[in-house]
Amino acid sequence: MYLLMKNLILSILVLFSALETHATIQTQTVDYQQGGTTLEGFLAYDDTISGKRPGVLIVHQWMGLTDYEKMRAKMLAQIGYVAFCADIYGKGNQPQSIKEAGALAGKYKSDRKLLRDRVNAGLDELKSNDLVDPTRVAAIGYCFGGTTVLELARSGADLNGVVSFHGGLDSPTPADGKNIKCKVLALAGANDPFQKPDDLAAFEKEMRDSGVDWQIVFYGGAVHAFTQFDVDKYNLPGAKYNEKADKRSWQAMKDFFAEIF
Amino acid sequence: MYLLMKNLILSILVLFSALETHATIQTQTVDYQQGGTTLEGFLAYDDTISGKRPGVLIVHQWMGLTDYEKMRAKMLAQIGYVAFCADIYGKGNQPQSIKEAGALAGKYKSDRKLLRDRVNAGLDELKSNDLVDPTRVAAIGYCFGGTTVLELARSGADLNGVVSFHGGLDSPTPADGKNIKCKVLALAGANDPFQKPDDLAAFEKEMRDSGVDWQIVFYGGAVHAFTQFDVDKYNLPGAKYNEKADKRSWQAMKDFFAEIF
Repeated sequence: MYLLMKNLILSILVLFSALETHATIQTQTVDYQQGGTTLEGFLAYDDTISGKRPGVLIVHQWMGLTDYEKMRAKMLAQIGYVAFCADIYGKGNQPQSIKEAGALAGKYKSDRKLLRDRVNAGLDELKSNDLVDPTRVAAIGYCFGGTTVLELARSGADLNGVVSFHGGLDSPTPADGKNIKCKVLALAGANDPFQKPDDLAAFEKEMRDSGVDWQIVFYGGAVHAFTQFDVDKYNLPGAKYNEKADKRSWQAMKDFFAEIF
Repeated sequence: MYLLMKNLILSILVLFSALETHATIQTQTVDYQQGGTTLEGFLAYDDTISGKRPGVLIVHQWMGLTDYEKMRAKMLAQIGYVAFCADIYGKGNQPQSIKEAGALAGKYKSDRKLLRDRVNAGLDELKSNDLVDPTRVAAIGYCFGGTTVLELARSGADLNGVVSFHGGLDSPTPADGKNIKCKVLALAGANDPFQKPDDLAAFEKEMRDSGVDWQIVFYGGAVHAFTQFDVDKYNLPGAKYNEKADKRSWQAMKDFFAEIF
């Protein structure tokens, strides 16, 4: 009897949920500034939700802010967050080739001070949004963006957590681990050929020595860029989409958010 | 309006769920046999659920089948599974001290053939239960039990997945990795002093080389036995309960089950 009633009620609930999915996800391009440079971000949220809600910053991979990150922003908006894609490279500085992407990502990876300033500008922009509860904020990043959100944490930024998806893990300034105030989740391909074992060991040592609340997941069979469904078009050895690892890592992120928000 | 209706319906649903929690979890001790030895297992299920459902085998830590594993069985029954705690050591062979536990666990760890036979007997017992859908079965294990469920997988057993909670990871017969038909999830303390790095590397190599669908999660700050709330009573250096890692690993197991069942 209970089961019958429960099923009936569940059916009604599913119907209402279906009606709700007609909600349009609102998106907009947002210009903001850092150190005299104009950056072009991208905002996504569900306008049927009222009131402040958690905010998620998304940091792009080495090709800059592309449709891929915008899709992730919309996916996050669909599950109730305000999502904001940061722009690290600057408006109009989208790389046109892998070579240009390598040069730009390299520039920021070797100037961590500038990288931290850029990503913090994105975080500030997100937190100042009227729809965002600034006490419930996280940052996620893909590849280059994964490295970047870890630098955001090391900068001492005030947020609840960071998630790196197949980010390059290293530890250029191990002492900065002690600045980390947020929880750290690293999601990695167990077969990622771009991840140098020594860098990984140094990252883990930094996390351990700093007493950070950290976790790392390795997905068997996954190589670099395993969440990027469009990566195969670059024909880059060692980088490949992996649907299983993509879904599992998205679930791991959702569990992490459920814990920290 | 939708939101109001949805909240109303959700409230009714919560009420029914609350009524449902009055369901008694049924438990029973089950004697079964392997190679002429009587083993004493423990079964738990929710008798308000009708029909066949997924089954989960639980393999104990080195102290044998204790109230800890029985609690996990009841927790699994509460979320809808038929849970069966295997007995590896045999009826009446419960270790009375850490010394005895070490000797017994050591005996089975050095006789993997016997260990596989024992754990397979438990799996068969679970699968033959009328409430279990034998096409949806997994095995989980703690410490010694984690090592054991990996041997179950290597034996070529027909099940959907195995989960090791702080199990000793090693690879005594790497060629047997190719027998693994199920998915593998290893949940490990990032600071577990009992996990030898060489053994871990060998385990990972076996998984990689065999093309197994595997994942490993390391929980920062967690040492050995991080899910065992009662481990502190043994005052064992390097083994400690860690509530955060306990909750996260339980969630990881639930996500895994949602995928494989």
